[in-house]
Amino acid sequence: MIEVEVKARIDNFTDIEHELEKLGAVKDKSEFQEDIYFQSPIADYGKTDEALRIRTTNNSTFITYKGPKLNRDAKTRKEVEMTIESAEKARDILTEIGFTPARVVKKNRQYYKLENFEISLDDVEGLPPYMEIEISLDDGNDYGEAQDKIFELFGELGITEGFERTSYMELLENLLNE
Amino acid sequence: MIEVEVKARIDNFTDIEHELEKLGAVKDKSEFQEDIYFQSPIADYGKTDEALRIRTTNNSTFITYKGPKLNRDAKTRKEVEMTIESAEKARDILTEIGFTPARVVKKNRQYYKLENFEISLDDVEGLPPYMEIEISLDDGNDYGEAQDKIFELFGELGITEGFERTSYMELLENLLNE
Repeated sequence: MIEVEVKARIDNFTDIEHELEKLGAVKDKSEFQEDIYFQSPIADYGKTDEALRIRTTNNSTFITYKGPKLNRDAKTRKEVEMTIESAEKARDILTEIGFTPARVVKKNRQYYKLENFEISLDDVEGLPPYMEIEISLDDGNDYGEAQDKIFELFGELGITEGFERTSYMELLENLLNE
Repeated sequence: MIEVEVKARIDNFTDIEHELEKLGAVKDKSEFQEDIYFQSPIADYGKTDEALRIRTTNNSTFITYKGPKLNRDAKTRKEVEMTIESAEKARDILTEIGFTPARVVKKNRQYYKLENFEISLDDVEGLPPYMEIEISLDDGNDYGEAQDKIFELFGELGITEGFERTSYMELLENLLNE
């Protein structure tokens, strides 16, 4: 699966929710997500631009691998996400095979659906408000068109700046290092 | 979880099934199991005596880490086993983070239950008949007693030799290298 994803800093959630509903977007689930990011024993994922994480939400637990970004403008990258039985067991296995839990990102995420867009309003602990728009494509599909559509939708929502390629994890890290 | 497990070569399944039923063991599920074992990029699991595998059965898929054996006589070791959504996704993630699929072990396993013993009659592709008896203990419990009970049960079943500490994967490898 290829995930094409663009994120932007927004002023506040209420105005954007209003704009989204005007365009016909449908409010979907809201959930608390706690992500534990791991460091690899053989690669510096900060430098290789990869990520391995365990995500725990209200209802489910996942393990997710994200490959390096494939282009400059959007966060287009390979993503493999798999439901698992337990965050605790996954952490135990990853630690035993050499991986190190490095950072935790916690957020409340409100999902919206519009056509084949998945829209997320992200209230991340320690960061200002962000919105993400994502389209998932099967491997091998052209992602340029998906990316154009995402930027078009941002435009319709009145957002033309504040785009951010840096992950929430790295944004939090940058704050800590300031 | 600590798994205390002893395996023995047996003559045939029919005689042992008869003996098991005489002792009151109850025939449990039977399943086909396909295990893919992985090699680590930072450790030679043959030498460190660890194992990382994906097991696919008729109904479920698991990922399992097994730590080094803690003693000589039984295969007493740490084991973490977690249900996962898909063998294909797990293989994809493990490959992306540096692990290499190394060997496949296929078997039909007939389970029996007796008190807190889990008994397995294993018809492994490429190997003669084996039986395993296992007790699972919470971490920190003394495994010496569990091990004694397992050898006692083997005795009651008339099995006093043919014990084997080598894994099916290694037994198959040894055959290939002969």
